[in-house]
Amino acid sequence: MGVAMEKRDRPRVVIAGAGFGGLAAARTLAHSPVDVFIVDRNNYHTFPPLLYQVAAGELEPGDIAYPVRTILRKIPNARFSLGDIRGVDLEKRVLEIDGRSVAYDYLILATGTVDHFFGVQGAAEYAFSLKSLEHAITLRNHILGCVEQAALEVDAATCGRLLSFVIVGGGPTGVETAGALAELVQGPVRKDFPRLDLSQARITLIEAVDRLLPTLPEPLGNYAARRLRGMGVDVRLECPVARITPDEIYLQDGTVIPACTTVWAAGVRGDPQAEASGMPTASRGRVAVEPTLQVPGHPEVYAVGDLAYFEEHGSALPMVAQVALQGGVTAARNIERQMAGQDPQPFQYQDRGTMATIGRNHAAAHAFGHNFTGFPAWLLWLSIHLWYLIGFRNRFLVLINWARHYLFREHAACRILPSEPATSE
Amino acid sequence: MGVAMEKRDRPRVVIAGAGFGGLAAARTLAHSPVDVFIVDRNNYHTFPPLLYQVAAGELEPGDIAYPVRTILRKIPNARFSLGDIRGVDLEKRVLEIDGRSVAYDYLILATGTVDHFFGVQGAAEYAFSLKSLEHAITLRNHILGCVEQAALEVDAATCGRLLSFVIVGGGPTGVETAGALAELVQGPVRKDFPRLDLSQARITLIEAVDRLLPTLPEPLGNYAARRLRGMGVDVRLECPVARITPDEIYLQDGTVIPACTTVWAAGVRGDPQAEASGMPTASRGRVAVEPTLQVPGHPEVYAVGDLAYFEEHGSALPMVAQVALQGGVTAARNIERQMAGQDPQPFQYQDRGTMATIGRNHAAAHAFGHNFTGFPAWLLWLSIHLWYLIGFRNRFLVLINWARHYLFREHAACRILPSEPATSE
Repeated sequence: MGVAMEKRDRPRVVIAGAGFGGLAAARTLAHSPVDVFIVDRNNYHTFPPLLYQVAAGELEPGDIAYPVRTILRKIPNARFSLGDIRGVDLEKRVLEIDGRSVAYDYLILATGTVDHFFGVQGAAEYAFSLKSLEHAITLRNHILGCVEQAALEVDAATCGRLLSFVIVGGGPTGVETAGALAELVQGPVRKDFPRLDLSQARITLIEAVDRLLPTLPEPLGNYAARRLRGMGVDVRLECPVARITPDEIYLQDGTVIPACTTVWAAGVRGDPQAEASGMPTASRGRVAVEPTLQVPGHPEVYAVGDLAYFEEHGSALPMVAQVALQGGVTAARNIERQMAGQDPQPFQYQDRGTMATIGRNHAAAHAFGHNFTGFPAWLLWLSIHLWYLIGFRNRFLVLINWARHYLFREHAACRILPSEPATSE
Repeated sequence: MGVAMEKRDRPRVVIAGAGFGGLAAARTLAHSPVDVFIVDRNNYHTFPPLLYQVAAGELEPGDIAYPVRTILRKIPNARFSLGDIRGVDLEKRVLEIDGRSVAYDYLILATGTVDHFFGVQGAAEYAFSLKSLEHAITLRNHILGCVEQAALEVDAATCGRLLSFVIVGGGPTGVETAGALAELVQGPVRKDFPRLDLSQARITLIEAVDRLLPTLPEPLGNYAARRLRGMGVDVRLECPVARITPDEIYLQDGTVIPACTTVWAAGVRGDPQAEASGMPTASRGRVAVEPTLQVPGHPEVYAVGDLAYFEEHGSALPMVAQVALQGGVTAARNIERQMAGQDPQPFQYQDRGTMATIGRNHAAAHAFGHNFTGFPAWLLWLSIHLWYLIGFRNRFLVLINWARHYLFREHAACRILPSEPATSE
């Protein structure tokens, strides 16, 4: 295959990963004298902060996924290639993709993270993940399948197990998922299964440390716990997990919770290929970047987003969309500076707030140096997410997909669906 | 499992299949003194006339699927059960579902049809079907995967094969699919793959008889052929298929068309379980019903929709949504009559027109005794489909799913997605 062998007149910037960081970098380079080559294993960009809503049946997969090629229509110097990234040859300056390799002059690694199970037995095999659209669909199908099975079940213990959902990890993902599942059970499930005894349904949120939302100020974590408990969620703090089986979860304190569904939201590690390619890593396989986001010893290679480990004022930046977006812009600008013979500049993160929703219309947010809770925090959350959704894919037009198709000659839905990966062709 | 063993105070009407026929029957029985038990292998109702738009990436799967349980919320005497129907024991009056059996006083069979391949070698293995939402998603993923592969391919013959799409069957499904694929290639694919040479792309529509749309008046078939040819579709009439392989299709006249994608829209047969259960069948496994839609010899069993073979004025009624909807109503009313000690009445089909779209804004329609073509026919098609979409699922509210979720406390998207069938739990 000829991709890597083409003659190049202009420097080629290869971007590995079409998430927030990768796309922000591509957009920033739109008017630079470079050829941008962006690679991802999916032909769509996902909006990960709302994956939990797909899992809980609140959103359709298409609502938070948008074809990368359609995004790139507006960036004429960028091209996309579908493929699984296999590694980087830092010496030869080549990105390995399946059977192909793509030479780069500059490389921006934005491949994100994978689940990290801390050696908890059975977690990799039996816990459900929420890292990708496929995960979210699998989890949703499993949850709805359990409820359907419970509706047919006559044994009370089995029924309880089918209606017991455990979420491991009290960070934003765990808190948001627990709230959404509580509302799923109390709302649509109650309405759609009028004969099902929901007194046995149970949502449990388990956190190893002594409070929820450890990356936010303490009062917000306490608020989240109170609010979730008010919604009927069994919040258990200081409860490390020992072992997970298909229908039980064992805590280190000896408690056994029967549950056919355990969701893993307890931790991630950097995409292992970065470490395997010989890049210096900080904790859990994340690339320990220079202040300029460059990989030490390889000034032509940048790492951004969740994959990059970057300390500011003595603590690591959180793994959130804002850090990835701003990091992508900085990496792209630094490449422009390098090409102009200037020194790359250090990344300066502008914190625009951190937040988590708790159920339908409450949230906990830390922004502008203040804590917000309840409905005002939720309005803040909604505004920010609508802003990015509109920014990324013109949300409301997409929602009237079908009407638009006829009015504007547009196929908004050309996304390879998760049930059959394109790479298996 | 206890479902079948429950004590019954009122007659139980079991409905096999939650398509147009089954749901119309359930709705008609909403205020009758019966218990309705409806079974389907999916927990969602599909709108099959628009499956081809899902395959062509014009609609998302969720746009044409709606949770059965949500539809049934308004029918308090109906309950739903997810399960694969395995057969009917006509003597014991029991419907077999997976490991369970459900006793009935009255049974309405509305299980539809499956593909019929007329013994064409390789068709069952290599042709893509368009009978279900899973089929449509698989076909779409395959088509988009072929285009992605073509974008990487340097060999011209392989590239041509990847961009060659053959549709077998010139009925409405074949005509609509051919038109939609032509527009997919000339529209979004052209825009999203600016470097791909589309001169090799080829859409071929193959029909064994001498014209398209054989169930519509001849001028409409001729119009469809002209219009598709104008869109660049290679329409081949009187061309029976001999054999299909993964990357070629052999016609009986000796022609070989290279193509990695062959769509089968050439024929169906009745759900084989009806014949296997001992019901009298007419051509191709469809149940030969009495004029009252009853199964001969079993006055408590009805067959409706595509599964039922019903002759009127010497020709069989077409397999379209209208026949299924009206048949479901008639079967339900006849059950009410039987319970009241009255004779069931014969089915009288009100023909409201037959039509097929050809591309975005043209159609061929026969309605009110007249033929319509072009844009007026398309407006007619659109009005009728919008009418049914709104009737079935409040289309426009569903399209603003996300907004509605927050405004009305509603999860519209609780549908088990095809990538992991619920029955595998």
